[in-house]
Amino acid sequence: MGPLRWQVAAAVAVGLTLALEVLPSVLHWLRAGRRSRSRREVLFFPSQVTCTEALLQAPGVEASEPSINCPCSLPHGESSLSRLLRALLAARASLELCLFAFSSPQLGRAVQLLHQRGVRVRVITDCDYMALNGSQIGLLRKAGIQVRHDQDLGYMHHKFAIVDKKVLITGSLNWTTQAIQNNRENVLIMEDEEYVRLFLEEFEHIWEEFNPTKYTFFPQKKRGH
Amino acid sequence: MGPLRWQVAAAVAVGLTLALEVLPSVLHWLRAGRRSRSRREVLFFPSQVTCTEALLQAPGVEASEPSINCPCSLPHGESSLSRLLRALLAARASLELCLFAFSSPQLGRAVQLLHQRGVRVRVITDCDYMALNGSQIGLLRKAGIQVRHDQDLGYMHHKFAIVDKKVLITGSLNWTTQAIQNNRENVLIMEDEEYVRLFLEEFEHIWEEFNPTKYTFFPQKKRGH
Repeated sequence: MGPLRWQVAAAVAVGLTLALEVLPSVLHWLRAGRRSRSRREVLFFPSQVTCTEALLQAPGVEASEPSINCPCSLPHGESSLSRLLRALLAARASLELCLFAFSSPQLGRAVQLLHQRGVRVRVITDCDYMALNGSQIGLLRKAGIQVRHDQDLGYMHHKFAIVDKKVLITGSLNWTTQAIQNNRENVLIMEDEEYVRLFLEEFEHIWEEFNPTKYTFFPQKKRGH
Repeated sequence: MGPLRWQVAAAVAVGLTLALEVLPSVLHWLRAGRRSRSRREVLFFPSQVTCTEALLQAPGVEASEPSINCPCSLPHGESSLSRLLRALLAARASLELCLFAFSSPQLGRAVQLLHQRGVRVRVITDCDYMALNGSQIGLLRKAGIQVRHDQDLGYMHHKFAIVDKKVLITGSLNWTTQAIQNNRENVLIMEDEEYVRLFLEEFEHIWEEFNPTKYTFFPQKKRGH
């Protein structure tokens, strides 16, 4: 090997070394990007009871506006409920709800607010629970929000929401004040393409299956003997 | 710049190019590793009713052993239930269960199998449901598995499991045959360090709060008038 070849080999080595020096920074940058893209949060309940008025103002008023000072005696900090409300109220285009039980007035107001703001809201629920005392389902329907429900014996037991086809909110929590304030529950908030796709498929599948044209309000009785 | 310098510069460039050629493969390899490390699956229910005998054999018999041919008339393929069983039966060291209702015989057998294999099993459940007909809780306790429960009015409504402190299994599904076969439910299976850490913290927190030394079997009556 002549001296020139040695020089070339050495220089190639220097180049490789330089590139490898850069590699960790590149990787760090890539990882940071990935992390910020895929939001992952978990809310545990029971939630501290806090005032959520500032979040639930009429359309047009920004939730973060500092001028809204509710004079009530509840604490005004963050809670699991306020975080859940915030995640929902971030919706700009669409909200799919698939909920076994829905009676929380705060969550009901949040959904109505989104509807008023022009977000396309669709609700799937369970037939056994929607007529119970305090259910929000009748109020949502009255406000013009589309609701579909099962008609069979099995429960529609999901408790998930999809915000703007980008964020999946799912867990053990039924949207009731009892559950929010008294039960041990979890709710995951995930910005995750794969999970959103799978839960959206599940939603669309159920939505079509619960098409109201298929409802049988008066189940046919068997004729003859 | 002399010819030698040009040679060196060119060689450095070649080295950099070589390293950058390699970069995509390195990144691909890293991403593949990350993907295989972070398992993400979702099971939807109701589950097809399938035979799960091959999975639930006595300790020592490998679940995948092809010689176990159950002669029953049920289908023998995969189902959401068999996938859930498989995820649980992968446990080698520890299993934490935090379940509102637990009455599925198959899931009960799986948990007992793990206990027999020396896996450290701990169960947290809700006091209102553990004494119901068909509950697995009494059987688990009889087998020597530690169970703790709440004593308050709110429900312990979680439905999660942690396998080997590595995989989180959580969703809307109570571990009952009714839910598995008839309800619309979801279960996420996630190999996710952050979520496992947070749910394990929640488990340990509740485990300590439900310490049996704190149980009040005979709530004290107020004395005096």
